[in-house]
Amino acid sequence: MTASRLCPPVASIAFTPGEPAGIGPDLCAHLLDHPLRPHLVAIADPELIRERTRALGRAVEPVAADTPATAVPANGLRVEAVALAVASTPGKLDTRNSGYVLDALRPRRCRLPDGRYAALVTGPVHKGIINEAGIAFSGHTEFLAERVGGHPVMMLAPAPGLRVALATTHLSLHAVAAAITPTTLETVIRILDRDLRQRFGIARPRIVVCGLNPHAGEGGHLGREEVEVIGPVLQRLTAEGMVLQGPVPADTVFTPPCLARTDVVLAMYHDQGLPVLKHLGFGRSVNITLGLPIIRTSVDHGTALDLAGSGNADSGSLFAAIDTAFELARVSAR
Amino acid sequence: MTASRLCPPVASIAFTPGEPAGIGPDLCAHLLDHPLRPHLVAIADPELIRERTRALGRAVEPVAADTPATAVPANGLRVEAVALAVASTPGKLDTRNSGYVLDALRPRRCRLPDGRYAALVTGPVHKGIINEAGIAFSGHTEFLAERVGGHPVMMLAPAPGLRVALATTHLSLHAVAAAITPTTLETVIRILDRDLRQRFGIARPRIVVCGLNPHAGEGGHLGREEVEVIGPVLQRLTAEGMVLQGPVPADTVFTPPCLARTDVVLAMYHDQGLPVLKHLGFGRSVNITLGLPIIRTSVDHGTALDLAGSGNADSGSLFAAIDTAFELARVSAR
Repeated sequence: MTASRLCPPVASIAFTPGEPAGIGPDLCAHLLDHPLRPHLVAIADPELIRERTRALGRAVEPVAADTPATAVPANGLRVEAVALAVASTPGKLDTRNSGYVLDALRPRRCRLPDGRYAALVTGPVHKGIINEAGIAFSGHTEFLAERVGGHPVMMLAPAPGLRVALATTHLSLHAVAAAITPTTLETVIRILDRDLRQRFGIARPRIVVCGLNPHAGEGGHLGREEVEVIGPVLQRLTAEGMVLQGPVPADTVFTPPCLARTDVVLAMYHDQGLPVLKHLGFGRSVNITLGLPIIRTSVDHGTALDLAGSGNADSGSLFAAIDTAFELARVSAR
Repeated sequence: MTASRLCPPVASIAFTPGEPAGIGPDLCAHLLDHPLRPHLVAIADPELIRERTRALGRAVEPVAADTPATAVPANGLRVEAVALAVASTPGKLDTRNSGYVLDALRPRRCRLPDGRYAALVTGPVHKGIINEAGIAFSGHTEFLAERVGGHPVMMLAPAPGLRVALATTHLSLHAVAAAITPTTLETVIRILDRDLRQRFGIARPRIVVCGLNPHAGEGGHLGREEVEVIGPVLQRLTAEGMVLQGPVPADTVFTPPCLARTDVVLAMYHDQGLPVLKHLGFGRSVNITLGLPIIRTSVDHGTALDLAGSGNADSGSLFAAIDTAFELARVSAR
């Protein structure tokens, strides 16, 4: 997506830099290069942003979140202030700041459901340190979904026009087969179809669904889930008018001729869909959460503690996440 | 691999075109373009090759398998004759020819163990029609392994320097976790290490091993197999001097920086390793069977019944399989 295609949305877009000891605060310096920076609001500790970016030699000046976009100075970034519990050192996790990370994500802060922001872009958080702080936390996406409602569906977009969604996400491999039920699969496909229409402006989304087993079960010889679960769900939803294809073997679906005829590939589980995605979209892939009442995109990388404060963080995925959020906000507002 | 790097081996290389109703016989016409054609011997029905290639407008003249390489005419192909049971029509499977397909693969025909051929290159067979003929047949590779011995390990090479092997192959997804045992994993890694040294001439193969679960189990939170099975095997074999890395998350291992430091990726199961391979190597990937006492490569496509006799078959994967077989034969003979 090129900057020239990006239009400012009616409302601003929120960005949570995430874990303060990671590269999230560093990436705020890169935001000075984003053409729609005046329409962004970081939800973070203003002093953290000021100090980290100054240390990197590209000082960002935090300004109040309600500053009009036209009044944001050249080195300015609007910030909705949340206070760190203790000062953060790059690369050093501290359980005392776990509350800060989650506080920035709470709807009372990022105020997404009431429309103050048109979309939320999230930076990386560190699951381990939040749990170590004694806060039960199974993931960024789950935390948001519990607060705003909905059934989150993870979709990655590594390149224009290529999208891969997951029917299940962070499950042990042995638990995957049992988790592919008619109800789950139908819910996920309905969300994909609806959100690709409403948020991506694709009139009739072409959804290609992977089989669960190798060779999509080879007619039942390598597993029965395609015959008993996936096939019947696809038949039922096709009869309603959806444009579905499958179950297709996962090693066929990612070949260039098949991808060319597809708006989204639905993989059944994490390692069936993500290796090819991460290969293709290395450093510029964006993670999109469908199925929520809000628009949410995310970087596809972690906190990269070893790079924090070094000036070597790469903003490719963050810029892709921001550009996608602006685009989805624009389409959704039509 | 360029033709200039290919040297004729001491012995010839055998090619089985496979299912007669598929594109295997068509591909014999493409062999006229291969620079080492005089050193190839097709194991097939000579009349089938003559007729199918004539119909495609590039008539191949079968000559006896013991014709000296220097005496093979410009449009000639050496053929070790096996007779079809009934004439074959492109695109029409016939159970009566299933015996023919398997006959070409029997060691008494292709004579690999006694060194008559330096390697075997196999074209596509159709598992379904062989089973319909009342012959229990679980796969091409298994059929060969039962006859020549060894523990077959499937490895795909979609591009120079990139190789992916599988710890398990055609298993239902729900059966994969239980199949990853210390014994299996150790056997597979030993074969990889040995064959990459002996057949690929890599002095100290760098083997990267994927985790079984998403994020390689995330320290035990998403599955225990990394902690209890994969990790201990890698520690033991590393102590013996092997160059192993892992367990690594499958969505990290296929990123370009990680692949650049790797001679082979060992995926735990079919759909963890093959989607990215088929994406990358579409139409020019080669399937290499390690762990057998013979050198065997194979095309990575099926019988393509709809293309048989059309002249539209693509020989990219066959040429890659032949070139790889010549290269492995050359290295192994050193």
